[in-house]
Amino acid sequence: MLREAIYHRPKNNWCYAYDRQTVHVRIRTKRGDAERVTLLHGDKYNWHEIGHETTEMRVFAQDALFDYWQAEVRPAFRRLKYGFRLQAGRETLWLNEQGFHEQEPENPYLYFEYPFLNPADVFEPPAWVKDAVFYQIFPERFANGDPSNDPEGVLPWGGEPTPANFFGGDLQGVIDHLDHLERLGVNAIYFNPLFEATTNHKYDTEDYRKVDSHFGTNEKLKELVDACHARGIRVLLDAVFNHSGRTFAPFVDVLKKGQTSKYADWFHVRQFPLTVKEGIPTFDTFAFTEMMPKLNTENPDVQAYLLEVARYWIEEIGVDGWRLDVANEVDHRFWRKFRDVVKTAKPDAYILGEIWHDSLPWLSGDQFDAVMNYPLTEAILDFAVKGTRDGRQFADQLGSLLAAYPQQATEAAFNLLGSHDTARLLTLAGNDKRRVRLASAIQFTMPGTPCVYYGDEIGLDGGNDPGCRKCMEWDESKQDLELFGFFAGLTRLRRSHRALRDGSLRLLAAEPGRATLAYIREADGERFIVALNAGRRQAKLSLQATGEWSDALKGEPFRAERGKISVALPAYGFAVLKQG
Amino acid sequence: MLREAIYHRPKNNWCYAYDRQTVHVRIRTKRGDAERVTLLHGDKYNWHEIGHETTEMRVFAQDALFDYWQAEVRPAFRRLKYGFRLQAGRETLWLNEQGFHEQEPENPYLYFEYPFLNPADVFEPPAWVKDAVFYQIFPERFANGDPSNDPEGVLPWGGEPTPANFFGGDLQGVIDHLDHLERLGVNAIYFNPLFEATTNHKYDTEDYRKVDSHFGTNEKLKELVDACHARGIRVLLDAVFNHSGRTFAPFVDVLKKGQTSKYADWFHVRQFPLTVKEGIPTFDTFAFTEMMPKLNTENPDVQAYLLEVARYWIEEIGVDGWRLDVANEVDHRFWRKFRDVVKTAKPDAYILGEIWHDSLPWLSGDQFDAVMNYPLTEAILDFAVKGTRDGRQFADQLGSLLAAYPQQATEAAFNLLGSHDTARLLTLAGNDKRRVRLASAIQFTMPGTPCVYYGDEIGLDGGNDPGCRKCMEWDESKQDLELFGFFAGLTRLRRSHRALRDGSLRLLAAEPGRATLAYIREADGERFIVALNAGRRQAKLSLQATGEWSDALKGEPFRAERGKISVALPAYGFAVLKQG
Repeated sequence: MLREAIYHRPKNNWCYAYDRQTVHVRIRTKRGDAERVTLLHGDKYNWHEIGHETTEMRVFAQDALFDYWQAEVRPAFRRLKYGFRLQAGRETLWLNEQGFHEQEPENPYLYFEYPFLNPADVFEPPAWVKDAVFYQIFPERFANGDPSNDPEGVLPWGGEPTPANFFGGDLQGVIDHLDHLERLGVNAIYFNPLFEATTNHKYDTEDYRKVDSHFGTNEKLKELVDACHARGIRVLLDAVFNHSGRTFAPFVDVLKKGQTSKYADWFHVRQFPLTVKEGIPTFDTFAFTEMMPKLNTENPDVQAYLLEVARYWIEEIGVDGWRLDVANEVDHRFWRKFRDVVKTAKPDAYILGEIWHDSLPWLSGDQFDAVMNYPLTEAILDFAVKGTRDGRQFADQLGSLLAAYPQQATEAAFNLLGSHDTARLLTLAGNDKRRVRLASAIQFTMPGTPCVYYGDEIGLDGGNDPGCRKCMEWDESKQDLELFGFFAGLTRLRRSHRALRDGSLRLLAAEPGRATLAYIREADGERFIVALNAGRRQAKLSLQATGEWSDALKGEPFRAERGKISVALPAYGFAVLKQG
Repeated sequence: MLREAIYHRPKNNWCYAYDRQTVHVRIRTKRGDAERVTLLHGDKYNWHEIGHETTEMRVFAQDALFDYWQAEVRPAFRRLKYGFRLQAGRETLWLNEQGFHEQEPENPYLYFEYPFLNPADVFEPPAWVKDAVFYQIFPERFANGDPSNDPEGVLPWGGEPTPANFFGGDLQGVIDHLDHLERLGVNAIYFNPLFEATTNHKYDTEDYRKVDSHFGTNEKLKELVDACHARGIRVLLDAVFNHSGRTFAPFVDVLKKGQTSKYADWFHVRQFPLTVKEGIPTFDTFAFTEMMPKLNTENPDVQAYLLEVARYWIEEIGVDGWRLDVANEVDHRFWRKFRDVVKTAKPDAYILGEIWHDSLPWLSGDQFDAVMNYPLTEAILDFAVKGTRDGRQFADQLGSLLAAYPQQATEAAFNLLGSHDTARLLTLAGNDKRRVRLASAIQFTMPGTPCVYYGDEIGLDGGNDPGCRKCMEWDESKQDLELFGFFAGLTRLRRSHRALRDGSLRLLAAEPGRATLAYIREADGERFIVALNAGRRQAKLSLQATGEWSDALKGEPFRAERGKISVALPAYGFAVLKQG
């Protein structure tokens, strides 16, 4: 076996508490290299007296280079001492903290340790998240329910979006269209920022305690949240705590008074007075954006201010969690305090970080419940929309992602195919709705919570910002109602079957050079096969299966013969088959 | 290049802030595989506009399987986007977050990120630690300075230690012997527990707010701390927060009142009433030790109590930090709060965890400053004392340890060769003082703070507990004064030269099958060669060097000839050579 490929290190994604009783242990080997991996485990304080147990590990994920093995154990006294036995052919290796051994180490002391399963450290995302389907609303562009609060110079609904124009969307507009969301079947909304700010996107907060006057009032938001809750819809707000806007009163004070301002330490000023030299502000900002001064979240006053904001909207207005803008540029210490405040205010609040990259340092239970799962976005788009990744490459990328985080992080991941920060799915798909449906079918049959970006469900298109921030189309004659029906069907399907939400995921077919893929999702005795064809020609998949199956969306029956089921898929087609 | 061997993942020990300006980036390759590794780095928000920089990485550590490369960069705006270019022969590979590429990726978006260097997250152990030499005192056995506080049944000083007997050591005894410590040259004491408890080791705390009456009083400890500080000696206490003793008042209350006790939730009771069934207490304990009930550090009342204890001894008595007993079985959340309280009370307090294993999850700046470096203990003993590891294997183990943690953790590591929990060095060495000196020479020329276990410096021996807890020998005719002189010399040498404390460490010779090893330590233009012979025959090392050198302990001159210096070492001998 290739020793250089074998990797294990306690905690993080390799050995973690999945719940208050269960520890997951993982190890990585070169793909196809080890035939059997056994976890040897026991209590460090009676290893010799009681003896240790063995648990067979199974490959739960694979990527281009590696097999990832997992075992679940429930240590009687919450202490776990463990090592690995790896076998291939006639070769047997033992791995402990000191490395590889060709004989079983006699001394358990040098085995690995998960020292104690303390409940306080267990990473427990809210249980409702894996059962949710999210809908993202960019409020200025969703619906104008109250023309009386329109900003000056508002343009007629449906015009071309620019970085600076306004169309009058507001909270009343959302309230007016909750039926649309309910018909679509979503049960959670993620709102782009709602607080007072100067821009149409509101990422330049002026007042964190006040709904933007063009959107409505705090009372209106409470009315909206209550109306949502009455329909079983949860509400997530956008917390822009990395930076404020340039009209945020403390920043205005620093602009005016410089070093003598009592808010001078609320920001990261490299040099007074605040100015911009050759395109670079003399103070830290988001990117190099002068209008977005970075907040000093290490300053206790700033912390107290922002944490009170976090508490206020949950306790007073009733929101169900926060999406954190530019989350990875804010210090971990602040986020830990934030989590304490948020979870005290509402124990099952959802904390969702905007991180586009590998996010392990935020996903250990002390900071976020999940991140916006852009790596999955990329993988799905590459396979189903752009055609730059074949079935095997897509499967490898999925495997990488499954192995990258604790399982509960995967189950609570926020899976999106587009947002206010990307081109829209339909546009990326070259307006080919088959590809939109294919990508969405994958999204809705993955672990993690899917999110529909407003309008995608009725065929809205648009390139990168500002194109992706068009006004929602409310004229039914201009909506793609068939597409809406498709999305509503997907939502219904996912919400009806736990197997599609947090069931196990196992690949059934993923071959290099082919644009097809199939995987099984399974829970509580229910089993689904998801079969995909991202190719531009029809494809026939012959998949290992037994018994009776039916297309879960179309009802058509399938019967396995001689241990195989045959699924014919049109170009960019897919099928979700349910056993029985 | 062997792709399966290459490893990098942001944060932890792979990409971390070394200080408020500097980020260290590391990558692992198969040993001897890559010839050149280049870090490509820039600011994510102007990668294209400004262009990125390149920094050559260097191999800073090696172990049996891998080369570990490091580069240090100082990102102008504290944001770092980076990737790797790896070269061997005619092969060039680029590595980014998505894996390997045979062409340079055009899109920097998929490069790795260290998103923002926030000072709050920088891991900054106290600067004094790397300049310290510690001395560990087991107080019941160091010196009896006040017979009036002796426990009942005290035995004459110098008798055979048993798990339960008492010899009357106390704080006055320490005060009386501070001259000894000063002559030895140590400048920090780590005390085993001092608080009221029933045993001789005091790991079963009865009262966390009170010095054990057989050791003295809180005032006496303050007198001791003040006396130490006056001599430039810092004082570290033992915090036994994982568990209390069975006479701890809240536990006594639970024993008596069971579920109705107001302290019922201060412990982890699996079943009332508290009892022991077939050797297993019905409540969680340290190991299965009935007299050490595990504290529920998730209970806010317990937290408030213990955190006040942490504060009290620092603020009121003046101690300089805490060694944390059984540190890895207590929840991370508690330790984060503990760090806040301790660092608020004394910003340069030292927080030292007792963890015998890989300790990365505690060494990221949010919890401990260091751990008791038992893996180094094992490595040194195997090489220099037991002879079970050759020069190359020892070097590989050192390399593993250097790569395992952020550099500042290595610099603040607590390097010990024995403690109250192990057999004594002299006994492990089969009473061969040459081996004691050899092992100690390594310990004193390593990064991290060395600690001398009381009595080792004058030739005390003893096997595992209770043997290692003998009374200190104060009769000079029975002390090995030559050994004392040796230790005093090592201490003086280390304290006189920064190169030996936190200078760079580079291996000069480490060959498989040979019991010799040499390494260079260097800082501020000062350079040392440490040459070791752990073999039972004399050995001649021919080491790459130029210019004039001298033995730093004995003064003897050495001159390099034709680019080599020749060092003859007796069996179990060593030399520390200083350039110039």
